[in-house]
Amino acid sequence: MLKLLQGLEPDRPPGEDGGSGTGVGDETNEFGQLVSVAHGPRLGIGMDSCVIPLRHGGLSLVQTTDFFYPLVEDPYMMGRIACANVLSDLYAMGITECDNMLMLLSVSQKMNEKERDQVIPLMMKGFRDAAEEAGTSVTGGQTVVNPWIIIGGVASVVCQPNDFIMPDSAVPGDVLVLTKPLGTQVAVNAHQWLDIPEKWNKIKLVISREEVEQAYQEAMLNMATLNRTAAALMHKFNAHAATDITGFGIIGHARNLAQQQKNDVAFVIHNLPIISKMAAISKAGGNLFGLLHGTSSETSGGLLICLPREQAARFCAEMKSSRVGLSGAVGQDGGAGDGQQAWIIGIVEKGNRCARIIDKPRIIEVPYRGSVVSAQEGSNNNASPPEVQLT
Amino acid sequence: MLKLLQGLEPDRPPGEDGGSGTGVGDETNEFGQLVSVAHGPRLGIGMDSCVIPLRHGGLSLVQTTDFFYPLVEDPYMMGRIACANVLSDLYAMGITECDNMLMLLSVSQKMNEKERDQVIPLMMKGFRDAAEEAGTSVTGGQTVVNPWIIIGGVASVVCQPNDFIMPDSAVPGDVLVLTKPLGTQVAVNAHQWLDIPEKWNKIKLVISREEVEQAYQEAMLNMATLNRTAAALMHKFNAHAATDITGFGIIGHARNLAQQQKNDVAFVIHNLPIISKMAAISKAGGNLFGLLHGTSSETSGGLLICLPREQAARFCAEMKSSRVGLSGAVGQDGGAGDGQQAWIIGIVEKGNRCARIIDKPRIIEVPYRGSVVSAQEGSNNNASPPEVQLT
Repeated sequence: MLKLLQGLEPDRPPGEDGGSGTGVGDETNEFGQLVSVAHGPRLGIGMDSCVIPLRHGGLSLVQTTDFFYPLVEDPYMMGRIACANVLSDLYAMGITECDNMLMLLSVSQKMNEKERDQVIPLMMKGFRDAAEEAGTSVTGGQTVVNPWIIIGGVASVVCQPNDFIMPDSAVPGDVLVLTKPLGTQVAVNAHQWLDIPEKWNKIKLVISREEVEQAYQEAMLNMATLNRTAAALMHKFNAHAATDITGFGIIGHARNLAQQQKNDVAFVIHNLPIISKMAAISKAGGNLFGLLHGTSSETSGGLLICLPREQAARFCAEMKSSRVGLSGAVGQDGGAGDGQQAWIIGIVEKGNRCARIIDKPRIIEVPYRGSVVSAQEGSNNNASPPEVQLT
Repeated sequence: MLKLLQGLEPDRPPGEDGGSGTGVGDETNEFGQLVSVAHGPRLGIGMDSCVIPLRHGGLSLVQTTDFFYPLVEDPYMMGRIACANVLSDLYAMGITECDNMLMLLSVSQKMNEKERDQVIPLMMKGFRDAAEEAGTSVTGGQTVVNPWIIIGGVASVVCQPNDFIMPDSAVPGDVLVLTKPLGTQVAVNAHQWLDIPEKWNKIKLVISREEVEQAYQEAMLNMATLNRTAAALMHKFNAHAATDITGFGIIGHARNLAQQQKNDVAFVIHNLPIISKMAAISKAGGNLFGLLHGTSSETSGGLLICLPREQAARFCAEMKSSRVGLSGAVGQDGGAGDGQQAWIIGIVEKGNRCARIIDKPRIIEVPYRGSVVSAQEGSNNNASPPEVQLT
């Protein structure tokens, strides 16, 4: 018989390209079906959160877990990102509240005591601050020692039936909205390549060092942004289904969502909003990470939401006018007072529960907020009005 | 600023002595207080589970998480142990039901594909089977790749106020009951030492190879046994407080429990039920792991329960007559039909919320069930009636 303890051996660190941590995990798809039971809807493994009917008055327990390895250098921001990433699975179901979070942490045995004492509290603070911004708190968790740092958590909420939106009701004629730009994996890796000449040489013709730094900051801000506003607006604008974009890239998650639909639909993506210059980097590397094919991993990405066509523009407008941002994070206000950009990126057609990106999707270059911090008004003028391509 | 990514480096495996995984983690004690709030009792980090008052009709969310590294060679049993260990935190609060479990898993990058395909499904099956035995199921989870295998989970339940027993109401005159024998860490390590001559030479005068194998099997069965029966009997016999014995050893968890008490009490432990011969090994190694001082880590240990003195003997009798066991596990019935032994091990006195073991505690040698499988009747005759020492 094969023995377990052989796993307890040292090995190499994750490759830089796999270092985002988002590609290796995510919920398993093993039993990914929607199953209706007598007590109410039950959502198994395969979508973002599980939904467990309870014995108490029509209530359901909705919960999710996610953990991964650090992908940004700043421990505080890493904590925020990990928390936003866990909560995002609830937000994808239109849930805006969370009753409790658990924090899952492993401390690297490679760090000395001083390093641990500085890094781990910052990471925990980032996680807790994001939880607080989400109106919840962290009560419970577990810490172990491991070769690699792990950060993650569990988010749980007990819901009334109207609190959540089952991700299965898209109809032909709906449009697809995305609430954060793509390209986080490219930005994070490009930032690491600043120190690796042979990598940097491949992309330096299409981007400057300063732009890489700005793109990295932009990616970090996006990953740390909660999808909570989007979750609230899903109710207001009658969303039919949603998921969040993480390790499988936008096309992977679009396909997964399409497979969950009750109706015979297909998702067709026309536009790819991407952090500025990340498409150019991907092209320079020969479609690096598959960004232009929608397969590049995202971490704590936006929500992909199926909305009635007539509601989508107003959804995007309210996202933009809502007050979001990272209060107090990384020494800047992260655009607090500014809203969050959302884009109509595709349509729902009749079809056999699949998803695709059209041959030559329009790339929407999403500018760095850091670069326009002194000119917040009109800062997103470079991005065309989202509905132009589709209506 | 210290950077996170430096943690992503290879390192050595855990030392064999620390390999049980129970000593490195456990819930942090950072905010370990009982806090009463308007909506109901709230139990924070520091005890076995957290209790979160909900917005819905007096209900509470009770949940816990635990994950660690494999400490037995059998993947199936490791899965069962991990599940029993997670659930034990609920059982320690007298909770007998669990609404959902999430599974947390990391696959070792050191294993080849064939090894993964054999080992991981067995581990998952063990976890799922134990969950099923507990009347719950696993819906959700996360898997990552890591240098070391990790197995663990999250257990959540939504409770009425009467479903759980806050662990804070011990009174002088109560007795302490323990529902599994101590010594799992010694048994697991002794089993590893069979292949390490310099270690084996130190203990071979006090134990045979066969006895080590039997002790290891006994430890494995105990770790995989659910504390669910004990949780149910806590209600029947009016338990005042309880905790489960894991990484901090019996004295560590007794102290932790003592600190949570509302009344001025102290816990005094007179008896140490220990898997047969493990005390001898510990002595031979110079109080190895601190077993005789109560500091040896346990994994998925028993419940330590404060019971009214007049109820304790009946509690133990009903534990013994209850039907428990690992149906179908490891090719033997694990004593199914047999009950589970429990021992009165100490008393609750007036005191300042501390716990201690008396100078020369009585060591109760708990025989291996494997060795008496053909004579189940009276198999525990070697253990004196538990109440003798205390009444």
